[in-house]
Formats: sequence, structure tokens, C-alpha cells
Amino acid sequence: MEKQNDVDKIVSLAKRRGFVFQSSEIYGGLNGCWDYGPLGVELLKNIKEEWWKSMTYREDVEGVDASILMHPKVWEASGHVANFTDPMIDCKQCKARFRLDVLGDSINQKKKDKAVIETKTEFKANAQVLERIENKLSNPGDEDPFNLLLEDAEISKVLLSKLNCPQCGNPNTFTDARKFNLMFKTFIGPVEDNSAVVYLRPETAQGIFVNFLNVQGSARQKLPFGIAQIGKAFRNEINTKNFLFRTREFEQMEMQFFVKPADDKKWYDYWKAERLEWFKSLGMTPSKLRYHDHPQNKLAHYAKEATDIEYEFPFGWGEIEGIHNRTDFDLSQHEKFSGKSLKYFDEESKEKFVPYIIETSAGASRSFMAFLTDAYYEEEVKGEIRSVLKFHPRLAPLKAAILPLVNKDGMPEISREIEKTLRKNFKVFYDDKGAIGRRYRRMDEAGTPYSITVDTQTLEDRTVTVRERDSMEQVRVSIDQLTNYLSDKLLNS
Amino acid sequence: MEKQNDVDKIVSLAKRRGFVFQSSEIYGGLNGCWDYGPLGVELLKNIKEEWWKSMTYREDVEGVDASILMHPKVWEASGHVANFTDPMIDCKQCKARFRLDVLGDSINQKKKDKAVIETKTEFKANAQVLERIENKLSNPGDEDPFNLLLEDAEISKVLLSKLNCPQCGNPNTFTDARKFNLMFKTFIGPVEDNSAVVYLRPETAQGIFVNFLNVQGSARQKLPFGIAQIGKAFRNEINTKNFLFRTREFEQMEMQFFVKPADDKKWYDYWKAERLEWFKSLGMTPSKLRYHDHPQNKLAHYAKEATDIEYEFPFGWGEIEGIHNRTDFDLSQHEKFSGKSLKYFDEESKEKFVPYIIETSAGASRSFMAFLTDAYYEEEVKGEIRSVLKFHPRLAPLKAAILPLVNKDGMPEISREIEKTLRKNFKVFYDDKGAIGRRYRRMDEAGTPYSITVDTQTLEDRTVTVRERDSMEQVRVSIDQLTNYLSDKLLNS
Repeated sequence: MEKQNDVDKIVSLAKRRGFVFQSSEIYGGLNGCWDYGPLGVELLKNIKEEWWKSMTYREDVEGVDASILMHPKVWEASGHVANFTDPMIDCKQCKARFRLDVLGDSINQKKKDKAVIETKTEFKANAQVLERIENKLSNPGDEDPFNLLLEDAEISKVLLSKLNCPQCGNPNTFTDARKFNLMFKTFIGPVEDNSAVVYLRPETAQGIFVNFLNVQGSARQKLPFGIAQIGKAFRNEINTKNFLFRTREFEQMEMQFFVKPADDKKWYDYWKAERLEWFKSLGMTPSKLRYHDHPQNKLAHYAKEATDIEYEFPFGWGEIEGIHNRTDFDLSQHEKFSGKSLKYFDEESKEKFVPYIIETSAGASRSFMAFLTDAYYEEEVKGEIRSVLKFHPRLAPLKAAILPLVNKDGMPEISREIEKTLRKNFKVFYDDKGAIGRRYRRMDEAGTPYSITVDTQTLEDRTVTVRERDSMEQVRVSIDQLTNYLSDKLLNS
Repeated sequence: MEKQNDVDKIVSLAKRRGFVFQSSEIYGGLNGCWDYGPLGVELLKNIKEEWWKSMTYREDVEGVDASILMHPKVWEASGHVANFTDPMIDCKQCKARFRLDVLGDSINQKKKDKAVIETKTEFKANAQVLERIENKLSNPGDEDPFNLLLEDAEISKVLLSKLNCPQCGNPNTFTDARKFNLMFKTFIGPVEDNSAVVYLRPETAQGIFVNFLNVQGSARQKLPFGIAQIGKAFRNEINTKNFLFRTREFEQMEMQFFVKPADDKKWYDYWKAERLEWFKSLGMTPSKLRYHDHPQNKLAHYAKEATDIEYEFPFGWGEIEGIHNRTDFDLSQHEKFSGKSLKYFDEESKEKFVPYIIETSAGASRSFMAFLTDAYYEEEVKGEIRSVLKFHPRLAPLKAAILPLVNKDGMPEISREIEKTLRKNFKVFYDDKGAIGRRYRRMDEAGTPYSITVDTQTLEDRTVTVRERDSMEQVRVSIDQLTNYLSDKLLNS
């Protein structure tokens, strides 16, 4: 049994079997946007549904579905207007535009070393800057010291003047770095001016924060409780990459848990454990999952504690979910910018205060890619390679296939009867064409956990053969028991 | 039993009970955008899930989930860039902006009559224009003849010069009418220029058209077959109105059924009947549903035949779904603009052709509003008014409530045991506070179909009372049978 670990193979399988297509493919595609095909949309729906059930089928979490367009003040309060930016530079000659760190990555080490030496020479009279340069060069982290130097405006300016444009090759042509906001902006109403600017939300979380008291009041919740949401978000990434991993349009599954400030650590630990367990409970390989705790000096401005749940993709470890102690930052900011109180009144202590928030923020699209990658195996069976997607049965796009073995009198009728019964509860597939081996392989490649073969014995005793995808073992089941059999497998696996 | 028919009452209930909140309410809201609260998100999810099952749990329909951002050429091919516009005029004095028909509606009949007489006088030497004016004035349709005159550029110019601005009152101040495109536009990538313009899709249908061959090939479908999709769409409406009926952000449930051109009438009739039946099957009042067939001279440019399914809202009849014979218009346009063949090869006849498309296009948000409105009743029960939402059990946000009757030893434990078991399959609610009558009313107002009362007898024989919301009848059910009892009710009601 060999685990297949190549992104290209996944992309190719994804397209061939209808999991994911390039958006607007007939027009050459739209960078950073993808469409989910017939099998993909089912897998994505199942992931979201499992998340929704695990997060909201409990007493202490409510759901919402907020709009993608929000009042523009939301993004001033959240800090996105001022800070959700990447530094960009242009080449004045050829007009090419680069994100600063991407430019750094594109230059070879010799040229970098030379530019750094020249920059040090230029600053030889300025001890302060020289010290900053040495500090960055000796940084123990895993970031390229050159990129750290580029982040320092004063140093960056000189450093850039020592480099040639990677596109046109001209020397000394770069503009100063400018902040480029990653929010997509549009205009609401008929006039395209600054007063009409609204943004496509870059995260779903703010739709939860601004609804805190509406939800708490209408659902009569008491602390601690959470609000969960699944929805699209948009980021105008300059560099999209790795298939579904970094895209411009994506889907998030976020939950904000409101707690008394003193309870923050307890709930942070609770959700951190809970969320990793969720991925494992749906069959994701434990050895390919890990926490990446953020060190204190690397925390985002709103966070007191933060960890990523990472999955080992073919391209390396990548974040699929973040758990954050956001403190009272978000609600306090919205109080300040809206002028409305977002305080919670605690009936026991008779105190009014702004709750702390523990956030669990998972990528639905990234989870999709992780589950798809994780499920893919190539195995030798009787001297042949079979490709199989070993999805957890609850995530599998198709739950069962109905496969009539021979075209005999009564066979289509009884097969169609089975199909009709199962369709009431399950997404199933009917296939009566070709050799049974090929039909099995096709279902293996779609990740269908159960293949139901209808044969001559079925006509005699109303039993069928159920083949399990991974073990390829077969059991005989009565037609009347099929719905219960599948329900049990789905619920208890 | 009295049916409650007031939009304001629905909006107020929707907010109070957590169905729908104004978007970004703490910032004064964002016009034309709404957020779904805890009960609303469940109702919306259930509507979408029922649609999805009825449309895609069948052999001849596949699902997709295409991105909201698409290649801009898509909207040239579809005609949206050129034609998806409203005519707008500005007042040169006060800068107020009006949609032409809205301006027409805001002027009283006397002033209209006077302006028309003056306009006729001005054109007295132009027999052609005079004839056009008389034709429009004698139009037998239900549209205001004044608005028909405003749609004619030559007449409109003179007519507008006879009117005062409704906002500032100044005479003769209007600009010529200009086309205002209703698509939200944004910029992809770091440069905000014309080459970077992309649009938020104004309809989900195009994401299906451009994926026609990708889906057909990967799913190995043969004609006739359909592709279904649920997703958000955006229209920069100048006048939003009637709660969820006309909004800027909304959700669609669309299915495009690809057929041989000769079979178009058969499938149009099939889907027209099927879709009306769907609303009825989920309990919508039949007398409040009707078809509105479009007369041939009113068809959209792409349509050969079209009908609306309308629901009688408190404000009048309104479209909740459209069924259209779109002919080969869409695929032919995309062939022309993409340069890619979108022809289907029919293996039987060995012919290659562009299929016809029968479209079923339902509004998820509008369906939500229709189901919510339709479910709302105020009834007199024992001298008191109860508000009740008589949702179909499959649509109800909460499927059951667990209500312990007294706080006796063992009672919380057995009630929590029931809750835990039911939560595996159903969204349920636990409430042990206050008088049982008030708890029932609360569940009536949330539309919860079954209330499970745990009493002293439960401790003796492990049975509970299940109260049905509409009839208020109570039956005794064994705890061990509760899951089956609810499953049966949900599946077979």
C-alpha cells in the first residue's frame, strides 16, 4: 500500500473525476478561483455538514449566516482597512509589480549577498541602521534574512537600489514599497465614489462579532456560548498557489466562543483539543496532523494565544485551522466604532463586561484539499494498481453504488427498486454498464464506500452482496435491511 | 384560525426570534443585505437541503458549486455587460439620482397628464413621434403609459423637461437617461484598471453553462440531463424593498436541464409541473401559489417560453421561481466568445449539436420569506392568542424540544439522556425553565413540530409525552422509540 503524495496527481484526478475544475476554464480560467464539480460539491457539502453538526448540535453554540457585504465601518473597526496589506513595489521601467517577499525569493543568493554588502557600505556612518542589519542577518528563525531586511523601510530603500528588476533586467528601477490592501472593494448604489465603497469580507468572523447581542438576546444564551458560521470570504492575493490552498475566493468554517475573561485559558485548551479531534474523527491520518503554537513575539495584534492545526500536504505542512484567544479586542473595537454597547450582563455577579473570545477558524476549502489528499491511495491488487479514495463514509460523495451483475429478466426491476429506496436517504449511483471489475474500480476512484451487487441469487432470496471499498470484503445483506445497514455504518463509523 | 398577513409583523418576529437581522445593524445596517440568525440559518439550510435532495438525488441531475468571481468575458457573452442595466437620470441641481420608472411612479397623475399634453404640443409637427405617443398611451397592458413614454429616448427627453425634480422641486433640471449596470464590479490583482475588472455574479446560471462539458464528461452523462447549483448572487439594485424580496445580496437555487432541441416543450412542461409541486410538497398553501406565464411579446431575449411561480405575499403576488426555455442561446454565446466548442455528440444519431436548456431558477432567500410568511398563524387557544409557525417538519429549524416537567430526582438525568440520543440525528432544544405552557408557546413561535415532555411517569416506565405543534394533540411514546418516531414523521410527512 503506497500513499500517493503528488499535488499534480491530485489536481488531475480532481478534474478527471469531477471534484474540482478551474473557474471559467473555457475562458482560460480565473486565477485563484475554482469550481466544485459533481463529486466535489458533495464532498464539500459533507465536510461542512459534519462541521455544522459537531459545532451547533449542542446547547452552547448557535449558528448564523451573515451577508458577504457588510457596512464599511466594520473593516475600520477590525483593523483591515489600515493593516490588511501586503507591501508592493513596481518597476518604473517595465511596470511589473512585485510583492516584496516574492521579489526577495526570486533573487539568487549571490546577488543578495552582494546587495547586502553594498547596503552596509552605504550605511557605514549610521551605527543604528548597521545594528539593525546585523540583528536581522543573525535572526534565528526560519525566515530569509534578506526578506527581513526588505521589511525595514529605511534599509529596503537602499537595498532595492542595488537590485535589477527580475522581469526587464534594468537596474535601480524600483518605486518605494507601498501598502496594497488585500480586500476586494466594490461600490454599493449608483455612484462610484469613496462614500459608496464596500468590501467583500476577507473573513467571516466579523459577521459574528457584530451580531453578538442579537444572537445572545434572541437565543437567550448565557456565557459561555459560541456562534458558528460557514461562508465565503475573499482575499485579493497577489500570489495564489498550491491548488485550493491559497485562493482568492474560499470558504471558512468559523466559531467564536464568548467567555468570561477569567475562563479564557480553560476554553482555549478545550477548543484546541476538540478541533484536532474532529479531523481525526473523520479519518484524517493522525501522523499528518500537528499543532503549530505561535510564539508570544509572533502573535497577531488581537491575540493572547494562538495555534495552527497543520496538515502535511504534498508541498509541506500547511495550516488548515487556527485557534485563537482574541481577548476582548474585537467587541471593544466594535463598541468604539459603532458607539453601541456590546457588553454582557452577568446575572449572577451583576457585572457588565466585554467577553473574551476563543475563535476556531477552519478553512472549508483547505479542509477539502486535506481530506481529498489524505484519502488518496494507489494499491496493488492482484498485480494491478487500483486508485482509491478512502474517504470516511460520512464524507464520501456517493454512499453506495447499485450494480446489477447480469441483464436477466427481473434484474433491472429489482435493482431500480433498491435504487429508489436508497435514494430517499442517500446519494447513490446506478451503474449497469461494463465489466463488474471496472465498475468497482470506478467507484473506488470516486471514494464510494459500499458497492451493492445484484445477482441471480437476489432474484431468489432478495439478498445482495455489499462490497466494502477499503477491505474489498463482501457480505450478503437482505434488501429490506439495506437502509438500516447503511445508516448504521454511516452513524457509527 | 386567522392567517396573519402583515410584512411588518413578519420582520418583527423574524428579528425577535432570531430568524433574520439587519446586516451590520450596530452600524445602522447596510441597505439590501440581511443576516440569518440561529433559527433562520436552520430554516434556510433545510430549504436548500430539500431542494438539493429533490433535484440531485436522481440519476439525471449533477451538482456543482462554481465560484462567485468569474472571468469577465462570461458577462460579455451572457449579455450582462451590455444589457443588465437600469435607465437612470440625475437632477443637475440637487444631484439626486432616480431610476426612470421610480421617478415616473413618484409623480401624481395631474402633473403627468399636463406634461404629456405639453410634450404632444412640442411634437405636433412630427407625425411619427405622435403616433408612438398615442400607441403607448393606449397600451392595453398593466404598465403605466407614462413609464412607457419615459422608455422612449426621444420622447423621454422632452417629457423630462416638463417635470420638476421630486427632491429639490426645481424645473427642467434632468440629465439625459443613462444606462446604469446592476453588476457589482471589483478589481482582481494589484492594479485597479479596466483590464482588472471582474464582477460579482448577478446569477448563478453562468457557472453552470461554462462547466457544461466538464460536468458531462466527468460524470459521463447523456442528454437529457441537468446541472444544479445553490449559491449567492449580487445585484446592485437601486431600490431594495419588501424585506428579503428585493435585496442586493441573495441566494439562488438553479438547475439547467440540457435537452435535444426537439424535446424542449416536453421538458419545459415537466419541470414547470415538478417545481410547483415541490413548494406544495413542503406545505406551502396551494391557493397562494400560481403560475404567471409570460406572453410571447414580453419574453427575455434568450427565452422561447417562460413562466414564473408566484406566491401571494402580504404585499401582493411575487415571483419565487422562474422556469425558462432558454433555447441554445447561452451555450452558443459562450461558444462565440470563448472560441471553444460546447457541442454535444449524440452517440445514437452521430450528430453534434448545441443542446437546448430548460432552466428552473428559484430564489432561496425569496423561498425562505415565502415559507416563513406562509407558516405564520395567530390562533385563539383557550381564550388566548398563540403565535405559531406551522413549518413542514422537514423545514422546521428545531425538530424537537425536550421539556422536563418537574425538577425531581432523576428527571434531569433522563431528560439529558434523551437530548443526547436525539442530538445525534436532529437539531433539538432543551428547556427546563418556566411554566410548561410558556415553554410550549415558545416552541410554537419557533415552529418546533414536536415537544417532548418528561414527567414522573417517565421515571417509572421510560415513556414520554410528544405534543404535536399544530393539532396540540399528545401521544405517549417509549424513549427507545423516539428516534424512530421522529425519523418516520420527518420522512413521511
